[in-house]
Amino acid sequence: MKANIKETSQKRIVIIGGGFGGLKLARQLSGADYQVVLLDKNNYHQFQPLFYQVATAGLEPSAISFPFRKIFQKAENIHIRIAQVLKVIPEQNQIFTSIGSIDYDYLVIAVGTDTNFFGNQKMMDKAQPMKSVAEALSLRNTILKNYENALLVENLEVRKGLMNIVVVGGGPTGVEVSGTLAEMKRYVLPKDYPELDFDLMQVHLLEGSPRVLGTMSDKASDKAKKYLLELGVNVSLNARVKDYDGLTVFLEDGKTIRANTLVWAAGVTGNKIEGLNPAVIVRTNRIKVNSYNKVEGYNNIYAIGDIAYMTNAQYPNGHPQVAQVAIQQGELLAKNLKGQLKNKTFKAFSYKDLGSMATIGRNKAVADLPKVKFQGFFAWLIWMFVHLMSIVGIKNRLLIFINWAWNYVTYDQSLRLIIEPKKTQSKK
Amino acid sequence: MKANIKETSQKRIVIIGGGFGGLKLARQLSGADYQVVLLDKNNYHQFQPLFYQVATAGLEPSAISFPFRKIFQKAENIHIRIAQVLKVIPEQNQIFTSIGSIDYDYLVIAVGTDTNFFGNQKMMDKAQPMKSVAEALSLRNTILKNYENALLVENLEVRKGLMNIVVVGGGPTGVEVSGTLAEMKRYVLPKDYPELDFDLMQVHLLEGSPRVLGTMSDKASDKAKKYLLELGVNVSLNARVKDYDGLTVFLEDGKTIRANTLVWAAGVTGNKIEGLNPAVIVRTNRIKVNSYNKVEGYNNIYAIGDIAYMTNAQYPNGHPQVAQVAIQQGELLAKNLKGQLKNKTFKAFSYKDLGSMATIGRNKAVADLPKVKFQGFFAWLIWMFVHLMSIVGIKNRLLIFINWAWNYVTYDQSLRLIIEPKKTQSKK
Repeated sequence: MKANIKETSQKRIVIIGGGFGGLKLARQLSGADYQVVLLDKNNYHQFQPLFYQVATAGLEPSAISFPFRKIFQKAENIHIRIAQVLKVIPEQNQIFTSIGSIDYDYLVIAVGTDTNFFGNQKMMDKAQPMKSVAEALSLRNTILKNYENALLVENLEVRKGLMNIVVVGGGPTGVEVSGTLAEMKRYVLPKDYPELDFDLMQVHLLEGSPRVLGTMSDKASDKAKKYLLELGVNVSLNARVKDYDGLTVFLEDGKTIRANTLVWAAGVTGNKIEGLNPAVIVRTNRIKVNSYNKVEGYNNIYAIGDIAYMTNAQYPNGHPQVAQVAIQQGELLAKNLKGQLKNKTFKAFSYKDLGSMATIGRNKAVADLPKVKFQGFFAWLIWMFVHLMSIVGIKNRLLIFINWAWNYVTYDQSLRLIIEPKKTQSKK
Repeated sequence: MKANIKETSQKRIVIIGGGFGGLKLARQLSGADYQVVLLDKNNYHQFQPLFYQVATAGLEPSAISFPFRKIFQKAENIHIRIAQVLKVIPEQNQIFTSIGSIDYDYLVIAVGTDTNFFGNQKMMDKAQPMKSVAEALSLRNTILKNYENALLVENLEVRKGLMNIVVVGGGPTGVEVSGTLAEMKRYVLPKDYPELDFDLMQVHLLEGSPRVLGTMSDKASDKAKKYLLELGVNVSLNARVKDYDGLTVFLEDGKTIRANTLVWAAGVTGNKIEGLNPAVIVRTNRIKVNSYNKVEGYNNIYAIGDIAYMTNAQYPNGHPQVAQVAIQQGELLAKNLKGQLKNKTFKAFSYKDLGSMATIGRNKAVADLPKVKFQGFFAWLIWMFVHLMSIVGIKNRLLIFINWAWNYVTYDQSLRLIIEPKKTQSKK
């Protein structure tokens, strides 16, 4: 069955995924002489860099989730559908989706990545990933429920388990979430739970390599580690998790940590798309593309962002899987596709690295910018400014700013809510 | 097994339910020479008058949900537990709950009401109630999913069903939600869904009695009806629903309406508490109390708010089930219980009716105040002011005010999100 999308005389570009890359591409194509079909599993774009603030009750989900329909209200050529893509059939220029099949003239795969559990089924069942707003909310609910349950038990070991939190993976997400949790331990939780002794609570950050923030400069790594230790995070480097049963974390060196909450931020793997030539799929499911983001061996299929594997002299192992690469690739592909209408030739992608940043806590951040590296209060201000400016919509910026300012002054928030909507079903 | 709550030398007051009545009572008892245990199914107080704005994507759930632990951070004698109460055992001064048994010296039942489906199982399965934040969120998700699905179908009848919304019950909730939906039809939805023809969409309000807002003045009723009609709501009075199969609403007079969304706001019934003498339970599960809110036949059990059935010359059929009664009863009971410590005698309850209000849409509200009845823009301003002032916390007031002002100016919102956190489990 064909999905119900009106056919026009325009060529149709189907974009799978409305993350940083897909969204940028669609926005740049709005008003262009193409029909654009944007498919996503959700009806909103998710601002991934702030998931950890949702998980730690610092921001409302709506502050970092932007409904596609609102973003594209004025774009007549953009058609949005909530759908799961099941398969590509390149020879028919068609994809199979949960809402029926859809023909394309050009296909852009921008499906991004999901949590990589490296095949560990137990981890998949018991650990908390944080790769979507829904997962961040679920982590928030889990942490709060564990504290409520800690009140109910008298056994000290059991109580410790409910209070402890282990974060696996010392990348930006792991660093940011463990730093924030340590701050909550200090400023917020003891006020909420005066009946609990917070000396019992431990926040652990486990990183398999010799340093946190491995993709950043040594200086940033060192400083981030120092900040984490100051906040009271137990940082373990060269620490690999062997197993987790939902109650105890087993490390490869034989150590164990009792913790009912394990946040898994240790790696990502590309979301799978069936139907492409297996030869173009490389490690962690990325899709080989040329310097125009065209998938190898295909004429009208592109891949951008985290899922794309583009190599060159500077990036022999592919570009970093970060927002900026996705945004710049989306922008260039839009330009190239629009140029094509005027018979212009495609321009090759060249990544302009704007640098990277991570925040560890109140007044504490590290920034590696192209020309300068710095840490501390100023980095933290820059971090906030950059993230605020990246947020879609003036009202959202305003609301986030109020939330942040409020938290800064009061050390407190009122978002520690366990809200779980009843599951809904929509019938046709 | 006993629930883990430290015993002190203070007498223990157990409050079941943190709605308007229970919350007021607990707040007034904070710092008093009692140990107070506040039990609720959720970890937050819900501001019921604005549920409809959550359901219609006008407000975030967090704006009207207030974590108990934050409210009582400075109240050392208040102990909060998330629990379901299963049974009261009056002869042992004990309750059974989902977290174990709890002894009490005084018990206050403030469990409020839930949706009354009048035993109609089909309605229970297919209709959308709106008596909690979680249900309001679920209604928001349902409506949005139905619009997404409307895009996918070509059959006009099926599409109409997905777009139509039937609201059953013409009390404040029904009036407010149908008015807001009609406004969304006019201002918001056509912009979000340019591919749909909104002339197809109908909002129906079905009321079984001869008028909407039956508890308010005739003038308020008439004006509310007029406003609803102006907004394009199909108001049917003396209209009773016989059946609903999830797709078609069958009325008693033989008419049918195709609608996948049916909002049920047609009545409430008390949340059940097992273990009390059945003789004190009257119609719609209310509990008979004397003028001190003491449950008939018991010495240390009280009931306040919607669940309490207190009659006198002025209210021969019990007091109205509204927030003000609950708040005033909670306040008086706190005063009486505190007075008891100084051997003061209890004061009898006397309801001070502050009037009632309902808002129908932008610039449109009706107000019956004790000395004056008025409708229109001024009533709408008063409505907003009163509700804003009733909200817990300055930041929440500020955020709601920004949201409202933003909506007022832009006719638009960015909360049309379908967010469903994964279910979480907390293990002990």
